[in-house]
Amino acid sequence: MYRASGVVPEALDHTQDMNNGYLRLIPLGGMGAIGKNMMALEYGEAILVIDAGLMFPDEDMLGIDLVLPDFSYIVENQDRVVGVVLTHGHEDHIGALPYLLNQVLLPVYGTRLTLGILNGKLGEHRLQGAADLNEISEARGLELGPFSLSFLPVCHSIPDGVGLAIRTPVGTVVHSGDFKLDQTPIDQRLTALHRFAELGEEGVLLFLSDSTNAEVPGVIPPELSVGETLDGIFSQAPGRVLVACFASHMHRVQQVIDLSARHGRSVAIVGRSMTRNVNIAENLGYVNIPDGLIIRAQQIGEVPDDCLTVICTGSQGEPMSALARMASRAHQWVQVNEHDTVVISARPVPGNERSVSRTVNRLLARGATVIQGPGAGVHVSGHAAQEELKLLLNLVRPRYFVPIHGEYRHQHNHARLAKETGVAADNIFIMENGQVLEVGPERANIAGKVQAGMILVDGLAMGEAGELVLRDRHHVATDGIIIVVVSLRTQDCGITGIPEVVFRGFAHGGSLEELVQDVQLELVDALHSDELRQIGDVSLLKEHIHEVTQKLLFQKTRRRPMILPIVVEV
Amino acid sequence: MYRASGVVPEALDHTQDMNNGYLRLIPLGGMGAIGKNMMALEYGEAILVIDAGLMFPDEDMLGIDLVLPDFSYIVENQDRVVGVVLTHGHEDHIGALPYLLNQVLLPVYGTRLTLGILNGKLGEHRLQGAADLNEISEARGLELGPFSLSFLPVCHSIPDGVGLAIRTPVGTVVHSGDFKLDQTPIDQRLTALHRFAELGEEGVLLFLSDSTNAEVPGVIPPELSVGETLDGIFSQAPGRVLVACFASHMHRVQQVIDLSARHGRSVAIVGRSMTRNVNIAENLGYVNIPDGLIIRAQQIGEVPDDCLTVICTGSQGEPMSALARMASRAHQWVQVNEHDTVVISARPVPGNERSVSRTVNRLLARGATVIQGPGAGVHVSGHAAQEELKLLLNLVRPRYFVPIHGEYRHQHNHARLAKETGVAADNIFIMENGQVLEVGPERANIAGKVQAGMILVDGLAMGEAGELVLRDRHHVATDGIIIVVVSLRTQDCGITGIPEVVFRGFAHGGSLEELVQDVQLELVDALHSDELRQIGDVSLLKEHIHEVTQKLLFQKTRRRPMILPIVVEV
Repeated sequence: MYRASGVVPEALDHTQDMNNGYLRLIPLGGMGAIGKNMMALEYGEAILVIDAGLMFPDEDMLGIDLVLPDFSYIVENQDRVVGVVLTHGHEDHIGALPYLLNQVLLPVYGTRLTLGILNGKLGEHRLQGAADLNEISEARGLELGPFSLSFLPVCHSIPDGVGLAIRTPVGTVVHSGDFKLDQTPIDQRLTALHRFAELGEEGVLLFLSDSTNAEVPGVIPPELSVGETLDGIFSQAPGRVLVACFASHMHRVQQVIDLSARHGRSVAIVGRSMTRNVNIAENLGYVNIPDGLIIRAQQIGEVPDDCLTVICTGSQGEPMSALARMASRAHQWVQVNEHDTVVISARPVPGNERSVSRTVNRLLARGATVIQGPGAGVHVSGHAAQEELKLLLNLVRPRYFVPIHGEYRHQHNHARLAKETGVAADNIFIMENGQVLEVGPERANIAGKVQAGMILVDGLAMGEAGELVLRDRHHVATDGIIIVVVSLRTQDCGITGIPEVVFRGFAHGGSLEELVQDVQLELVDALHSDELRQIGDVSLLKEHIHEVTQKLLFQKTRRRPMILPIVVEV
Repeated sequence: MYRASGVVPEALDHTQDMNNGYLRLIPLGGMGAIGKNMMALEYGEAILVIDAGLMFPDEDMLGIDLVLPDFSYIVENQDRVVGVVLTHGHEDHIGALPYLLNQVLLPVYGTRLTLGILNGKLGEHRLQGAADLNEISEARGLELGPFSLSFLPVCHSIPDGVGLAIRTPVGTVVHSGDFKLDQTPIDQRLTALHRFAELGEEGVLLFLSDSTNAEVPGVIPPELSVGETLDGIFSQAPGRVLVACFASHMHRVQQVIDLSARHGRSVAIVGRSMTRNVNIAENLGYVNIPDGLIIRAQQIGEVPDDCLTVICTGSQGEPMSALARMASRAHQWVQVNEHDTVVISARPVPGNERSVSRTVNRLLARGATVIQGPGAGVHVSGHAAQEELKLLLNLVRPRYFVPIHGEYRHQHNHARLAKETGVAADNIFIMENGQVLEVGPERANIAGKVQAGMILVDGLAMGEAGELVLRDRHHVATDGIIIVVVSLRTQDCGITGIPEVVFRGFAHGGSLEELVQDVQLELVDALHSDELRQIGDVSLLKEHIHEVTQKLLFQKTRRRPMILPIVVEV
């Protein structure tokens, strides 16, 4: 395995043979759908991995907890990997690492906060200490095999994010990371436009840029504007102020802390991931909390309502989150009441609209004042919008462009923006996961495909919840299941007794008992005819039971539940 | 049963005894959640039913096709019902009627188009001709028992909608219907503001008004503005124009037809519900189609691309809709290609955001130009926004106010708007389904509750997909199912052979075969011990099998699938 030392082993002599002096870009996730960002950049035999994120499942992935990119290409080629570089600490960029590192030990590079958050996750997977974590900073570069990396500060909805400038023998690759162009960021850490400009001056071969907001016109308002709105809310709130936001949004948390201090309010941090992240960020110096400002959740009752702020999880309406439980009066320390002002300081991630709405309904029913939604001014996006995306494209002036992150529609729109800024249409590639883009100074083109896709994680198991399992779950979830047990005498292949018939999850207008009897009678009839007793083979018998049962059920109920024939030989 | 004749039978003599000269308003649906609008208005023994709609299920109602209001109160009191009045022809206002009329014959009153659409639905349920349908019009009133009704034209996203003015011995009740205040409606049928004003002058006891857009500031742009945007799109489209909208939005359809005629395009109507509704609307005179403009879907290939418009279903991304199939190239007559311009002329209903996004991604991947979304100007809402809601409140000047339609949050916001226009806070009631509001000139208050809730419809069956069935479906959908079959010798209560173990929908990291063997061995052990062989009772034995299996599975896999023990006595 290549190590961080930057020593180039002999293997690299094959470079010319392997890919003729071309770079190879291989997205393993992050194309076509939101989340699970992961890609490989190859030169010669060396592979640089950028990010390894997860995504949360679609509503039709029944029982699935997480979705990972299929990283088997990396596992199979682990000896060629020079390192994994992380752009920032969001789940969709680092969430798959514990699963990857569980299979193969690779050196990981990230900024201080990114590694701090990753380390917390590794702890949950009992991998803490086992991983090879290396801190990077914008102050110095990093040599990994043939790749010479430098790190560009970028502003995002989590601190300490970076973009990447990767110098290679073929030319420079620039990766935007997740970014926005806030000109007055809370931590004064601006997106390094001057460095992007410098790279553009030098010449950039390939640019990869964040497409998440490529459909949003204009620019994203500054994070400070949220603070201004919150200031007004804090001034007027008659009682407690509850602010729900993403657990990693430390700029937002910092603003709420500063405002609370200014308005004489103590702050309670509620919700597991929020508590953990604020702790990590405070320990590493990414959040500044005045002494004595924070109180424990247990002390909430001891503080007068108008002297209290609660920062909590639940901005996506997650049913088990702090805010949802507070709204249902199921929280141990906080029950929402009519004197509370609740600020939902986030936008629903697509697919979460209904669950957020359910939480809002409950909060309003408790009499609380609820402030949320697009017009309320209590949230701004962490991703650059159209005018900002074009600005960065104009600074970087790449020869080739690959829009990354977001759904197909966002990458499609980002491609359009790139064309508008003068990138040649033929030099823009909307890629699919697993596709290999070969890039050289003279040409770039799709040249093959590697294994890629999704790994579904269901509880502890990984990858085993495949197509068939999901299809079975869908079938039962939609139409229910009927189990038919037939006892077969092995001596004479006769049927003994009446078949057992059990329904589960089956909806029927009439009497279920009658239906059970109908199925039993039909099967007794069908299985006692001389012809059928001769079937002998158990799998043929099962097929026959299936057929007879299905026909009768469809005729009687117009439904097709899953039918599971079981033959017991006695 | 009371008939439309308006004769008041003796029963009404009990009026004073029954509710002391008070009106009783009972929402049976439409409160707290979007859809399934239905309410009862009672005076004495007479019940007037207003609307009977359905809603589409939440994503967690696995396998459920439709949700109806629980109308058992109406069925039980059918002899007291003087009629069912419909405000307009949308599913959430008339969709439950076929199910209601299947149980009890009631006279139904609606405008011409509303009855036309209802009749189509009744046909699907084989109830056509069996129902007692009576046409109403804004030109004349209707006497139903103690209720004297007149109908106020209201503009909405379906033609021929009405609001209701219901004069009763206690005072006048005004029901807004679903409305907006478009000042230049396509059919020149304005919302009858002068009549609302007149009623306000006379004095209105109780006002019920549409809360759907109570969170939207300002006013809704006119439907004509959509036509202007579409005009520009038609001018520039190089090939076919495909417009997807709601199948009942005849104003939108009319605009697309007029524009097509102006731009020299033939029109194909594609999608079952769209074809049916356009036919009904044209036959009844609610859509005007120039002769020869419409072509059949089969003829699409015969018309040059730039001379063709397709109006289709699928604006909600429904997987089986015309647009979704066109986007997946699975449609018989239309496959979307890079010369097509696709206009999604609708807003995603909450919960449909992801499926719409999936369709957009597919269309873009086919190379089509896709025009949709809030900024595109190709859709306006059918429901009045805040300034319009306040305007109507100021015209009607009710003593008591009940916000109807929408989720709790919308009714809550509408209540706030009513307060701002001067309705006394104590005179505003946000109701729950089943609550009874007693209203008289001097007071109004909640006075009891009747049976109300949801009826879940799964395929042909109604009401039987209850809590237990849904819980079973959830369990299997999340964790899978394991079936354990044990054969019990009746002579000596011994176990014969090895138990059958079958998994379905169960995700497991290791080998499923090994797990099956583990379960079998554990059960053989557990069931052969002398102690357990003595259990004798089959249900106790099942419980024991359940316990043993669950313990082992959780220990080996950390999961809790549904476990279904079956004991076969041989």
